[in-house]
Amino acid sequence: MGDYLTTPELLPGERIDQLYSQDIKIIQSPQVFSFSLDAVLLANFAKPPLKQTGKLVDLCAGNGAVGLFMAPRVKGKIAMVEIQPRLADMARRSVALNQLEEQITVYQQDLATIFNQIRKDSVDTVVCNPPYFADLPDSKKNPNQYLAIARHEIATSLETVIEVTSGLLKMNGKAFFVYRPDRLLEMTAMMSKHRLAVKRLQFVYPKVGRDANIMLVEAIKDGRSSGLKVLPSLMTYDESGEYSAPVKKMLYGE
Amino acid sequence: MGDYLTTPELLPGERIDQLYSQDIKIIQSPQVFSFSLDAVLLANFAKPPLKQTGKLVDLCAGNGAVGLFMAPRVKGKIAMVEIQPRLADMARRSVALNQLEEQITVYQQDLATIFNQIRKDSVDTVVCNPPYFADLPDSKKNPNQYLAIARHEIATSLETVIEVTSGLLKMNGKAFFVYRPDRLLEMTAMMSKHRLAVKRLQFVYPKVGRDANIMLVEAIKDGRSSGLKVLPSLMTYDESGEYSAPVKKMLYGE
Repeated sequence: MGDYLTTPELLPGERIDQLYSQDIKIIQSPQVFSFSLDAVLLANFAKPPLKQTGKLVDLCAGNGAVGLFMAPRVKGKIAMVEIQPRLADMARRSVALNQLEEQITVYQQDLATIFNQIRKDSVDTVVCNPPYFADLPDSKKNPNQYLAIARHEIATSLETVIEVTSGLLKMNGKAFFVYRPDRLLEMTAMMSKHRLAVKRLQFVYPKVGRDANIMLVEAIKDGRSSGLKVLPSLMTYDESGEYSAPVKKMLYGE
Repeated sequence: MGDYLTTPELLPGERIDQLYSQDIKIIQSPQVFSFSLDAVLLANFAKPPLKQTGKLVDLCAGNGAVGLFMAPRVKGKIAMVEIQPRLADMARRSVALNQLEEQITVYQQDLATIFNQIRKDSVDTVVCNPPYFADLPDSKKNPNQYLAIARHEIATSLETVIEVTSGLLKMNGKAFFVYRPDRLLEMTAMMSKHRLAVKRLQFVYPKVGRDANIMLVEAIKDGRSSGLKVLPSLMTYDESGEYSAPVKKMLYGE
């Protein structure tokens, strides 16, 4: 029998989407978790470790989108950490679907316990798309628990994420986050408290004339806190309502 | 004898420039001080006090550009504070040139001593275009002392400016600053220390594809530190190298 294309087992409601620019397939489910533009932006913004021995960790990995999208540019190993078993399982099956089992390990656990698996001060790069919203008693949360945990600080908090990021990183290791501009100063204050110096910020605006709705943050462990750069503005949509040229390139390639 | 146009006495090297959008004339001198786009951006970004009794203070006023450009939109009194006698004198003569002596008072003194003239907790709005650069021993400073003092923290420091701003403002009074993005986090940390909550940020980019080189900051005294807005990106120049439409409007009017 020759080679034939196997269709991986999908659970009900799941489908396989593709990020054409990177030729990566990813298992998604609108009922459970689908990656959003934020993951694509973060994967493009983050610089992978330069060395083959460099280690990259994707915290709050969800269905693994950020780590999967970066994989073609990463020479070394990637670890994904996701607390939700259903999402970690999707990530594992996507890793297999792309035949990246050698490169990528998925840890299904609370990121606060990750030092049992990954040594402190041993990681070159951390990428993270953390839950965006505080878990306030009166905050409207999605009744879907998968989405609520991905979006709200229920299973973890921003400060825990930042503390663990700093703990994982080597001196001069780099952290890349995607987050909401309305929490910029909270995030940068916490980073500063946990030895992460913010070096680059990029604001993403839905289109010309609209407030920024996404920000990308690069920080360096034990770095100097001067010399912040605010990178060129990025528009999600152009005047005609289509994805802008830079976003199209991230999604579909040249 | 009827009315006739008087030409005010100009010192050697001085000239009268005009901000057409506001029909304001301003005495300048390339050898001493000329306002830059930053002053125009700040005057447009700042919201004047709503009430006729509202007080506005322009700190680090230079030749008075920001206060003069805002005057047509301000119902109440304006105080300008400038430490350099030569610049304060230019500001006073520009105030007279525009017949705004009733509305605008120029204080030539160190802003740290301004509480002798203006009561604490009495001001509705502070606007400020502070010196941008730290006065480091090895920093290149303009050999022209007028310009060096305007640009470097020689006669004052960012922290003093922020402390005085906070001291002047009433509870819920507003501060508007123009500054350099590379000192964003320094500025916001100092503001937070001195009871100023940052509410709006706007980044100004020279043109599409370039890092931001100017930022505008709005803070409120004793306000809540959540809910930061990052306003639409502003380009100084358009693709053809001319001032962008929003900047043209600020400079020349509709």
